[in-house]
Amino acid sequence: MGTDKKLVLGLFGFGVVGEGVYTVLGQTPSLKSSVKKVCIKNIGKQRNAPKELFTDQAEVLLNDPEINVIVEMIDDADAAFQIVSTAMNNGKHVVSASKKMIAEHMAELLELQKKNKVSFLYEAACCASIPVIRNLEEYYDNDLLHSISAVVNGSTNFILTKIFQEKLPFKDALLQAQQLGFAESNPTLDVEGWDALNKWSFLLTHAYGIIPGKERLVFTGIQNVDKLDAEFAAKKDCVIRLTAFAKKLNNGKVAAFVLPKFVKQDDLLAFVKNEYNGVVIESSFADKQFFYGKGAGSLPTASAVLSDISALRYDYKYEYKKLYHHEPGELTNDFYLKVYIGFTDWRHVVKEDFESIEEWHSNDKVNYFVGVIHFDKLRKSTWWKENGVSLIVDADPLIESLDVIHMKKRSLELAGFNGD
Amino acid sequence: MGTDKKLVLGLFGFGVVGEGVYTVLGQTPSLKSSVKKVCIKNIGKQRNAPKELFTDQAEVLLNDPEINVIVEMIDDADAAFQIVSTAMNNGKHVVSASKKMIAEHMAELLELQKKNKVSFLYEAACCASIPVIRNLEEYYDNDLLHSISAVVNGSTNFILTKIFQEKLPFKDALLQAQQLGFAESNPTLDVEGWDALNKWSFLLTHAYGIIPGKERLVFTGIQNVDKLDAEFAAKKDCVIRLTAFAKKLNNGKVAAFVLPKFVKQDDLLAFVKNEYNGVVIESSFADKQFFYGKGAGSLPTASAVLSDISALRYDYKYEYKKLYHHEPGELTNDFYLKVYIGFTDWRHVVKEDFESIEEWHSNDKVNYFVGVIHFDKLRKSTWWKENGVSLIVDADPLIESLDVIHMKKRSLELAGFNGD
Repeated sequence: MGTDKKLVLGLFGFGVVGEGVYTVLGQTPSLKSSVKKVCIKNIGKQRNAPKELFTDQAEVLLNDPEINVIVEMIDDADAAFQIVSTAMNNGKHVVSASKKMIAEHMAELLELQKKNKVSFLYEAACCASIPVIRNLEEYYDNDLLHSISAVVNGSTNFILTKIFQEKLPFKDALLQAQQLGFAESNPTLDVEGWDALNKWSFLLTHAYGIIPGKERLVFTGIQNVDKLDAEFAAKKDCVIRLTAFAKKLNNGKVAAFVLPKFVKQDDLLAFVKNEYNGVVIESSFADKQFFYGKGAGSLPTASAVLSDISALRYDYKYEYKKLYHHEPGELTNDFYLKVYIGFTDWRHVVKEDFESIEEWHSNDKVNYFVGVIHFDKLRKSTWWKENGVSLIVDADPLIESLDVIHMKKRSLELAGFNGD
Repeated sequence: MGTDKKLVLGLFGFGVVGEGVYTVLGQTPSLKSSVKKVCIKNIGKQRNAPKELFTDQAEVLLNDPEINVIVEMIDDADAAFQIVSTAMNNGKHVVSASKKMIAEHMAELLELQKKNKVSFLYEAACCASIPVIRNLEEYYDNDLLHSISAVVNGSTNFILTKIFQEKLPFKDALLQAQQLGFAESNPTLDVEGWDALNKWSFLLTHAYGIIPGKERLVFTGIQNVDKLDAEFAAKKDCVIRLTAFAKKLNNGKVAAFVLPKFVKQDDLLAFVKNEYNGVVIESSFADKQFFYGKGAGSLPTASAVLSDISALRYDYKYEYKKLYHHEPGELTNDFYLKVYIGFTDWRHVVKEDFESIEEWHSNDKVNYFVGVIHFDKLRKSTWWKENGVSLIVDADPLIESLDVIHMKKRSLELAGFNGD
C-alpha cells in the first residue's frame, strides 16, 4: 500500500510561510522530507536557519538532480512561473501557493504536467488550509455538482463584516483591516476582486473542467460597497459577501462570476465572518456541504503546503477529472441576473441595460434600484464598476428565462417608473 | 492519467438509499457504472425497477465474475459482514454504509483488504455526505492532527437542539424527532450513543491509526440529559452536544470519548443544529477546519455511496496511512476530565470517584456539581450512565496534570463541601 517516498526539497522563498514550512519539516521526521536548499532574493538578510542552506541562484535548486520537489512560495507571479515551469521540465514535482500565476497560466501548467509526468499541487493557493481543490477533484469527481459558492478572500470579508456589524464607512473598515494585518498596505488586489478572481479561475477547472484563461470571468470587488448598501442588506435580512459563484444551469452550461452578493442571514456564507473563508457545495442528493476555515495567513498557508508535500510521498497528483474524463463544462453568458444598484447620480447608471426594474428608491440620502439585467450586457459594460455605483447581486439572482420578468417590466412601466 | 474503468455493480439492499443510488447511476452515464443485479430480502415486494434485476440469492451476485463492485446497503451488521468479506475474498471491491459492521470488524476488514488487494470504501458510514474519512486519510495524512471533535449523530443533535431552543422535556423532543423522521421508532442505538460510538471507532483509525475494537471507547448518549441541564448550559453561555472527541495529549497519546459536552455558543459545534452533523479538525498551523452538512437521510447517504463508486473508477483505496506509514496512535486513559453531574438523588452519585469538586448546587429542583475525575475511574464505573444522573463534559475538559486541581480540592474541603 503506497510508496511513501523520501522527498528532498528545494524551497523558493523564506518569508513567514517558507520559514513555517521549513521549521515543521525539521520537527516532523514522519513527513520524510528534508530541505536541501532555499533560494531567496536577499542573501545578506539574517535568517533563522543555517547560512549554508541559502542561495540566491535559482539554478542551484533547479539543476540539482537530488532535489525531487520544488516548493514555490514567492510573490512575483512571472518569476514563479519561470521557476515552476523549469522545475517541471527538469522532472521535479512542484508545490506552489501562487494563485495569480496559476490562474494566468493554467493551460500551460496542464501541458507541463502532462509532458513531464510530474505532480503540480497548489492547495495553498485557494482558501489556504481548507482542502477545497482536493475535495472538488476527488470527492465531487462526477457530474453531480450543482453549484458552488464561496467566500475566498479574507481581506474583503473582514471589511464587509466591519461595515455591516459596526456600521463603519468603507475607508475606516479598510484602515482597521490594514492595522490588523488583514489587508495589504496596497489593498487593490484584494479590494477590487483580483485575488478572488484568480482563485475562482482555477477552482472552476477543478469544479467543472473550465479554464477561463484570458477571457476573464465577470468580476468586481467591494471598492464601492458602503454603509448605505449594508443598511439595505440589513433591512432585507441579508449580509453582503464578495461571492465567488458557479452553477450548472438547466441547459447544462455553467454560470459563473465573482461579485458582491446579498446573502440571507441564515445562509451558510453569512456564517463566514471577518477574515474567514467558506465554501458551500451543492451536489445531487447531498444537499449542502460547507467547508470553513482560515483562508489566509502564514500558518494556514504553511499547513496547506505541508499537506501537499505530504501527498507527494504517495505520488498524488490532480487528475483534472472534469477536464479529461468528462465532457468539460462550458461557461455561458446567456442568462439574467437580478441585481441591486446603489448610486449617487442617475447619470452614472445605464438604465437601458436593464430588462426590468422591480423596486426603486431615490431621495436626498438613499438612491438605489433592483433590476434584472442580461448577464452578457453586464459583462460588456463597465459603468457598474465605476466610482459612485455599487452593484450587489440578489440573494437568489439567477433567472434562466424571462417570461415572468417581462410581465413585471410592463407593470413597472405602467406604474410610471422612469428614474430621471 | 487515471484508468477510469467501467464498473459493473451488484447492490445489496433496495431501500431508499439503494433505490436512490440505482436511479442516479441509470441517469448518469458519465459515472460509467451499471447495476447488473440487486439482492433483496423480500423478492415479492413491488419495486421501481425491472423485475429481472432482483434476486434474493446473495451468491448470484457474489459469484458473478462480471460484477466487480459490491455495494452493501443493508441494516443487519452480521449479514453485512458476511457479504462484504465474501465479496472481498472473491476479488470484488466493496462500498459499504454499515457503520456497526465496520466498527466491530475493523481489524478483519483491514486484513481482507490487504490479502485480496481490493478497495473497501465507506464514506457513507460516517456523517453521510460530509467527506470526513477521505479528508482525514488524504489531507490530514500526517502527524500534525491535534484534535478532532464532531457531532456525528443527527437524531441526538435534533433532540438536544429542541430541548435547548424550545425548552422541551427530553421525551417530548424525542417524540418530535420521531414524528419528523429524525429518530427511529426504537431510538436506543442513537439516543444511548451506540451509533456515534460506532462511527467514532473507525474515524479514529483514519485520524490516528487507532482501532478501539472490542475494548470500547468511553461513551454514553443523551438519554439522561434534560431541561435542567440545558438551563445550566444556557447560564454558562453554552449549548450541549453529544460530542465525539479525540485529542493528542502532550505525551503523544490520544484521549478519546463520545460524551455529552458543553460547547460554547461561539464554538463551531454550536453552529451544528437540528439533524446536521459537523466536524472540527485542529491541526498544526491550520487553526480550525470545519466540515458541515447533513449527516443522515437517504439522499445524503446515497450521495456518499455514489462518490465512493465514482472513486473506484480510479482505483482509489484508503491507505490507512496513520496505521501503516506512521507510528500508530495509542489511546490513553491517564488524564483528568472536568465534568458536570446533574442528579436527582445523591445516592446515585459516587462522590469518592472525584479528585475535586469545583462548584455545587443543591435544592428542591436543581441538583448538580462540577468536578474533576480521573478518566480511568470514569471508564471503570457505570453509575454516571444510570437513570437519574446526567454527565456532561466541560467546554474545556482536559486536564493532563493535577497540580492546580489539588489546591482547589483542598479549598473546597475547607469550605465544608460534603454533599450528603
